[in-house]
Amino acid sequence: MIFPTHTVLPTDQGARAVPEEVPVALSYGGTTHAVMMATPADLEDFAVGFTLYEGIATRDEIEEITIQPVPDGIDLQIRLTEGAGDSLRDRHRRMAGPVGCGLCGVESIEQAMRAAPAVTADLTLCDANIRRGLEALWRHQRLHEETHAVHAAGLWLPGQGIVAVREDVGRHNALDKLAGFAARQGFAAGAVFITSRISVEMVQKAAVMGAPVLVAVSAPTALAVRMAEAAGVTLVARARGDRFETYTYQHRITRGSSTDVA
Amino acid sequence: MIFPTHTVLPTDQGARAVPEEVPVALSYGGTTHAVMMATPADLEDFAVGFTLYEGIATRDEIEEITIQPVPDGIDLQIRLTEGAGDSLRDRHRRMAGPVGCGLCGVESIEQAMRAAPAVTADLTLCDANIRRGLEALWRHQRLHEETHAVHAAGLWLPGQGIVAVREDVGRHNALDKLAGFAARQGFAAGAVFITSRISVEMVQKAAVMGAPVLVAVSAPTALAVRMAEAAGVTLVARARGDRFETYTYQHRITRGSSTDVA
Repeated sequence: MIFPTHTVLPTDQGARAVPEEVPVALSYGGTTHAVMMATPADLEDFAVGFTLYEGIATRDEIEEITIQPVPDGIDLQIRLTEGAGDSLRDRHRRMAGPVGCGLCGVESIEQAMRAAPAVTADLTLCDANIRRGLEALWRHQRLHEETHAVHAAGLWLPGQGIVAVREDVGRHNALDKLAGFAARQGFAAGAVFITSRISVEMVQKAAVMGAPVLVAVSAPTALAVRMAEAAGVTLVARARGDRFETYTYQHRITRGSSTDVA
Repeated sequence: MIFPTHTVLPTDQGARAVPEEVPVALSYGGTTHAVMMATPADLEDFAVGFTLYEGIATRDEIEEITIQPVPDGIDLQIRLTEGAGDSLRDRHRRMAGPVGCGLCGVESIEQAMRAAPAVTADLTLCDANIRRGLEALWRHQRLHEETHAVHAAGLWLPGQGIVAVREDVGRHNALDKLAGFAARQGFAAGAVFITSRISVEMVQKAAVMGAPVLVAVSAPTALAVRMAEAAGVTLVARARGDRFETYTYQHRITRGSSTDVA
């Protein structure tokens, strides 16, 4: 099923291409877990990446994904294998009760701040890898080229450079789509390149992907740096042209040598 | 209570100031409604703006806001007057049940896509108002000046220009804080200036503030433009220096005349 990803609208300065933004529900067993505002492309990737990141099920436990257009949006109906999705049912059970979700501030914050898994893969990038990776990331942004208004996430592998790019109006969604695509294709863990800032959740998502290196065009938050330290992720930020800054685990980044220039 | 809004961290290129990002719970009657990743500043404004935007209570129904530091975050405990917050209880009641939140994709998307109220105030801005408003918005971004990594929202009033600016790592939070501040101070509805892109929720938030004009540094989504059309909001986007594009209700924006140059 193909949905338009952008549309041309009139302005007082002439016609402009703008990205579509659609409410996308992620539903398991007929019950919606979340609604995200997203670009309606690569929706199977999105469903898989979201399911993995939320810890709802493993790749093998996802039996079928149905993309169901509904009034005003799209419902991603995800069918899991028998017995899968127990954590989801537990979470919903905790929300049951007459007048509240049952979670106080302390519990809710604990849930929001779950620890990221420690990365186990390793990887070294030189400055030329980073420069060329960024160039490739920009080159592969087809929707951004049309609209100048969406984010992208790219997967970089040693000797190959950027092997996949996913775009979305939301930077979290772009990374979920990339993670889903990588899982479906069985890609090895690589470096993740993103066009946005690094909030803590971008580090958590990269860590769930097993990515030892996260390279971003813009700056990190302090919490993102702490999370990267805890998860063993190398954070490279404000990466533009030849310039970048490494915040954590600097041993994975070499400067001035260009042996592997994918 | 003062929390640090940024911190200085080492990188391989020297020390860098990065913004803090903290899980902030919004709790009513001891039950958390949401956890947002936010900059820990102007938290009363945030609590009021969030409460108004979510339609949980009116300004007068908010009796007390307690800012409670908890492990790993901050709990904003909002006490409402007797009988207020019924819509919240109804919402939670619908979520009650043994195994699910009880909402399917169609219902969940309907909830996410609630209509924005039609704006009733009117306002005209000339091109000089927009240029000077943007200059003032940048000038007032104290945290952005330190970190180059946060968003801002500013309130513009006729004859006065930008009268208030709020910043946050999240663009939605910056606008919630501005809305809360405006409500607490009793400001009239004015134009809203933002440093980010215009997703649909930014239009919904501006409309709830009663703002007839929304000016953004970056581009809108197609859904944001449709929502602005429905709510009667003038959308001005990609506003940088002397350039901008008007997407909707262009009669509120004049070019080439500079009678009111606040």
